[in-house]
Amino acid sequence: MAANSLTPPPPDSRLRATSFLQSLQDQICAALEVLDGGAQFRQDSWERPEGGGGRSRVLREGRIFEQAGVNFSEVWGEKLPPSILNEWPAAEGHAFMATGTSMVLHPRNPYVPTVHLNYRYFEAGPVWWFGGGADLTPYYPFAADAHHFHACLAEACSLHHSDYYPVFKLWCDEYFYLKHRQENRGVGGIFFDYQNGLGELYHGPCPQGAAAQYSHQVGEVGDRDWESLFALIQSCGRAFLPSYLPIVERRHTLDYGDRERQFQLYRRGRYVEFNLVYDRGTIFGLQTNGRTESILMSLPPLVRWEYDYHPAPGTPEMELYETFLRPQDWLNWPD
Amino acid sequence: MAANSLTPPPPDSRLRATSFLQSLQDQICAALEVLDGGAQFRQDSWERPEGGGGRSRVLREGRIFEQAGVNFSEVWGEKLPPSILNEWPAAEGHAFMATGTSMVLHPRNPYVPTVHLNYRYFEAGPVWWFGGGADLTPYYPFAADAHHFHACLAEACSLHHSDYYPVFKLWCDEYFYLKHRQENRGVGGIFFDYQNGLGELYHGPCPQGAAAQYSHQVGEVGDRDWESLFALIQSCGRAFLPSYLPIVERRHTLDYGDRERQFQLYRRGRYVEFNLVYDRGTIFGLQTNGRTESILMSLPPLVRWEYDYHPAPGTPEMELYETFLRPQDWLNWPD
Repeated sequence: MAANSLTPPPPDSRLRATSFLQSLQDQICAALEVLDGGAQFRQDSWERPEGGGGRSRVLREGRIFEQAGVNFSEVWGEKLPPSILNEWPAAEGHAFMATGTSMVLHPRNPYVPTVHLNYRYFEAGPVWWFGGGADLTPYYPFAADAHHFHACLAEACSLHHSDYYPVFKLWCDEYFYLKHRQENRGVGGIFFDYQNGLGELYHGPCPQGAAAQYSHQVGEVGDRDWESLFALIQSCGRAFLPSYLPIVERRHTLDYGDRERQFQLYRRGRYVEFNLVYDRGTIFGLQTNGRTESILMSLPPLVRWEYDYHPAPGTPEMELYETFLRPQDWLNWPD
Repeated sequence: MAANSLTPPPPDSRLRATSFLQSLQDQICAALEVLDGGAQFRQDSWERPEGGGGRSRVLREGRIFEQAGVNFSEVWGEKLPPSILNEWPAAEGHAFMATGTSMVLHPRNPYVPTVHLNYRYFEAGPVWWFGGGADLTPYYPFAADAHHFHACLAEACSLHHSDYYPVFKLWCDEYFYLKHRQENRGVGGIFFDYQNGLGELYHGPCPQGAAAQYSHQVGEVGDRDWESLFALIQSCGRAFLPSYLPIVERRHTLDYGDRERQFQLYRRGRYVEFNLVYDRGTIFGLQTNGRTESILMSLPPLVRWEYDYHPAPGTPEMELYETFLRPQDWLNWPD
């Protein structure tokens, strides 16, 4: 076996990945319904003509969530796009499967952050990888929330390798960046892709980026086999509820007025801009005849654009721009 | 001279194109202010570090227009993107200039359609072309409005060549199409690019499209010189006010309620999706460090997304989907 060849997945790899990602959707939806206490999820099951399908769940006009979308999908097919085959020639001639759970929550109260989660697994013959992450997008600047969110994700990662959190945190800052605004989407979290045990942690699109500079070999090939990486995404996925629910609990009863609501609607425009202009999953889904309504469930229910808006100096809105929309070391943020 | 080489532009080509496009912005803004009778345009002049600049004009919270944006820009530079050099090798080694006026109007009353206009001129050494068009996006189905808009544009085109309107109408239907929704953006109008007198009218991205199938040689090379094409875009540009103002006049006083307002906000989401996912001008501008606020002036001031919305059978909203969001022969629509 060549030094850089993949360790094989176990025979039941697809079933186990699918089963975990479905149960993650179930757990999250159940907890969000209890938390919301107002509305319930509606489920649409759908099939993809080329193979596979999914379960889209949407909760609308809840007490806490203006809209919550949690998707599970499992698709398979025969033809891989050339971009994947060029990079992973061993996938040639194999059918592929891709499964994932993704979620975007748009709370009503502007003091409660929007949050996104996505974990996924891909397999084509001997080629496989895990990807995903979670990131937080506050409208108002609470350092304690950013710290808590990062601390939970860092703890989940640290169960598996001490380098995971630092690299995935930088990778997240790199990915959720709106170049045309020179802003990050929010306070980030973790993001990773192509985790399959080959030595390098970072396998991203940005060779000059922060994550690439930090990244390095993590042990010998084979140290990070399928089981250890499956355990990693399980830890990360299960860390979501404890990372986010306490933030909702302490913010959702704060009073707010029209100013905060208008700022929230304005900032939601950045979510739309990111998802439609930069997000690879969204663009790939729209281009490959994915289920449009499920893909665009991430878009906020109500959004505002305002020409040439700038926050006023000394306001919380300005603090958001100056501190929270730039990469920070939230894990070690002083209280 | 090779049979398919360009006829040269006159020595004052840049000045004349710029001057016309500026005056088009002036005329449109002046007429819209009178029509609105409530708000006025604010102008921001800006410079581009790499060369050139523009005048962005926005009218907000008017009596008729919730937002009206009219941009003029004139940019120049030394480095052409490889995509242009590959197609037009004669531009190699020449500085380029690109100038244009673009406009998007978002009316308040849902019975008044949104409208977009853009006319532009590009020159790099011996290489030059005109492009542009105008298209109408109604929220409620009034065939008379679609017919009137098309009739004005067809008349403007027919002053120059009988084939212009039929080809540019199909090209417009082709361009303003949301593949992921399987919908046209609205009732279209005209769209064209790369008009420089080379024989073929259609020079688009869609070799199997309707416009390509219709398109054919228009006379001999040289029949359509710089002067004749400059005259064409002047006619088209000047046709805008008579094509749109009568529609506003007859719709803006119609009563509407929450149902119509909500549908308008929902349909505005398609405008956002088109501009951020498909519109070449928007994507090119964002990627090349254009002035973000001017580029995104096209986005509506308030927008709504709703998971899995479908219009009810027998409603005006359904009639919009079934008839007005599909290509139709609006010029010959029966009264």
